[in-house]
Amino acid sequence: MKSYFRKEIDAIAGYTPGEQPKMANLIKLNTNENPYPPSPQVLEVLRNFDPARLRRYPDPTADELRDLFAASVDMKRENVIIGNGSDDLLTMIFRAFTSPELPVAIFEPTYSLYPVLAAMQGAKVIKIALDPTDFSYPDDAVQKAGNANLLIITRPNAPTGNCASRELVRNICRDFDGIVLIDEAYSDFAPDNCADLAAKFDNVLVMRTFSKGSSMAGLRLGYAFGSENLISGLMKLKDSYNADMLSQELAKANFLDAEYREKCVAQIIADRDKLAAGLNKLGFKVIPSAANFLFAAPPDGDGEKCFTFLRERAVIVRYFPGEVTGSYLRITIGTPAENERLLAVLQERFSK
Amino acid sequence: MKSYFRKEIDAIAGYTPGEQPKMANLIKLNTNENPYPPSPQVLEVLRNFDPARLRRYPDPTADELRDLFAASVDMKRENVIIGNGSDDLLTMIFRAFTSPELPVAIFEPTYSLYPVLAAMQGAKVIKIALDPTDFSYPDDAVQKAGNANLLIITRPNAPTGNCASRELVRNICRDFDGIVLIDEAYSDFAPDNCADLAAKFDNVLVMRTFSKGSSMAGLRLGYAFGSENLISGLMKLKDSYNADMLSQELAKANFLDAEYREKCVAQIIADRDKLAAGLNKLGFKVIPSAANFLFAAPPDGDGEKCFTFLRERAVIVRYFPGEVTGSYLRITIGTPAENERLLAVLQERFSK
Repeated sequence: MKSYFRKEIDAIAGYTPGEQPKMANLIKLNTNENPYPPSPQVLEVLRNFDPARLRRYPDPTADELRDLFAASVDMKRENVIIGNGSDDLLTMIFRAFTSPELPVAIFEPTYSLYPVLAAMQGAKVIKIALDPTDFSYPDDAVQKAGNANLLIITRPNAPTGNCASRELVRNICRDFDGIVLIDEAYSDFAPDNCADLAAKFDNVLVMRTFSKGSSMAGLRLGYAFGSENLISGLMKLKDSYNADMLSQELAKANFLDAEYREKCVAQIIADRDKLAAGLNKLGFKVIPSAANFLFAAPPDGDGEKCFTFLRERAVIVRYFPGEVTGSYLRITIGTPAENERLLAVLQERFSK
Repeated sequence: MKSYFRKEIDAIAGYTPGEQPKMANLIKLNTNENPYPPSPQVLEVLRNFDPARLRRYPDPTADELRDLFAASVDMKRENVIIGNGSDDLLTMIFRAFTSPELPVAIFEPTYSLYPVLAAMQGAKVIKIALDPTDFSYPDDAVQKAGNANLLIITRPNAPTGNCASRELVRNICRDFDGIVLIDEAYSDFAPDNCADLAAKFDNVLVMRTFSKGSSMAGLRLGYAFGSENLISGLMKLKDSYNADMLSQELAKANFLDAEYREKCVAQIIADRDKLAAGLNKLGFKVIPSAANFLFAAPPDGDGEKCFTFLRERAVIVRYFPGEVTGSYLRITIGTPAENERLLAVLQERFSK
């Protein structure tokens, strides 16, 4: 049968998200979700929300949220755009800045959605390899990015969990002749972030999500900071009403309860360091993480076998095939009980 | 300053949605929202929803909804795709089927978002004029669509409210060498629909929304029917988690309460016909409508002046500048009280 799809779409397989299995009693450590619920304030708003209001369209630009997020980093409403999750923003950003003539540069390994979005645009992907032993960043990234129009720094990086140094990121922002997107999906768990670079440089976007530190993956809310010029350009690509009314209001309530969020994040960080120590003890190589997950290689360096072993015992983690990544597993930090269960299962296989 | 945006993005102004004014005591008849709240079942689900679940990602493919919608038209899950509103689906469809080499054909006048989405893709828009006196459809639409790869039939049409005949639509689906998208945003208010054509023809997509008949514009939920091949291709372009968890569950509850929805729709249809009669009496030319709005020209044929007159009296309708559309107003059907207030205000100006 004749295909009417653009050839770029026929050529790709699409992105496969981490599975959302429906089995009960599963320990689910595969999609970097937060083990704790969102703020109790969310329940409050939910219980008092009048569903009759849903007959109306939501605020198309989500200005209350924009004002909140802007104030948190000393910027203005015009410096913020809201997305239906940060995937929605990524789609806009690739549609804005990449094409068959405008390549994108990414580090390798990183978030596997980027090359899929590039392929949809027919854009070339320039891959800049991280050091295969510790995933550290090369100093000459700008040179390696060549003629790319967009360069993405995931900070902390996924799936490796480490952070490019702020100095390196700053130098890239200063020297790169194109858009630098700093994807801060996991920055809640890191010692610092780069929001100030979006204020300082006209060519820089800093993107955040409610799916990780804010415990609202089910709600779909992301946002990005940038110069007025960049934000107003991206606004043209935004679906008019991309963030729904309930998401806007629940996200607001959750964001305002910083104390609760920070408590959950601190717990996850403490448990991350405990889990890293436990894995080290079993002979795993663990990459130092600034995120809510660990990238860890089992003693035999066979990520796939370990993934299957865990899965058969109802513990689901994430495995990324590939020459470098195939030795590792990406393990989301769960509750203390979940982390202990993971260690106990691994001990069956790797105890020395 | 240098722009890093694709030239197509720099060239466009973006789409302007109908305003969502924050003034109180306003009669808002400008964005075709439903005057009645969604089903009481929505409140039930909302009150019982445990927000702790929001820490998880939603079902990426929204299979419960797909099964429901598929069953309603005797199709299968694989024939349905869910969107974050139908705007999200339109964006996917334009990204899938239009490009600088692949034009789109639309009727004129129609939904003003289509040309904006085409411009983002760098795609040419082939405009097929409707009859300027009654907005009826030409018989030779397929010939006029030329080498378009996508042809959109909005049925009922917006902003005019009339319907292309099912026979004409069927012939277009059969004869057009490309994708036919039948945008049924307003089909709840029409005497018939075209879902069967998506089952019959491999090249046909039929798209629906919860924003109009289902009273959930604030929630963002749309869906489309098509062949397995078309749907699986579009799935590649979908953001993984485009429909959030609450939207999926509230939409399900609302959809299942068909009795309530049909009662509201019947009321709106009855009030539409009453309002049309009232406007006719004041000398308006009213296009026969199969939607939840009327396209009506004031006696002096000056849509803009009438729009301003109403706005100054706190009644907001929609005005579309243009040689043909500029004579008309698009008026959403409100509650009986709102419709009566509109007529009373217009009587000040146009009573004979």
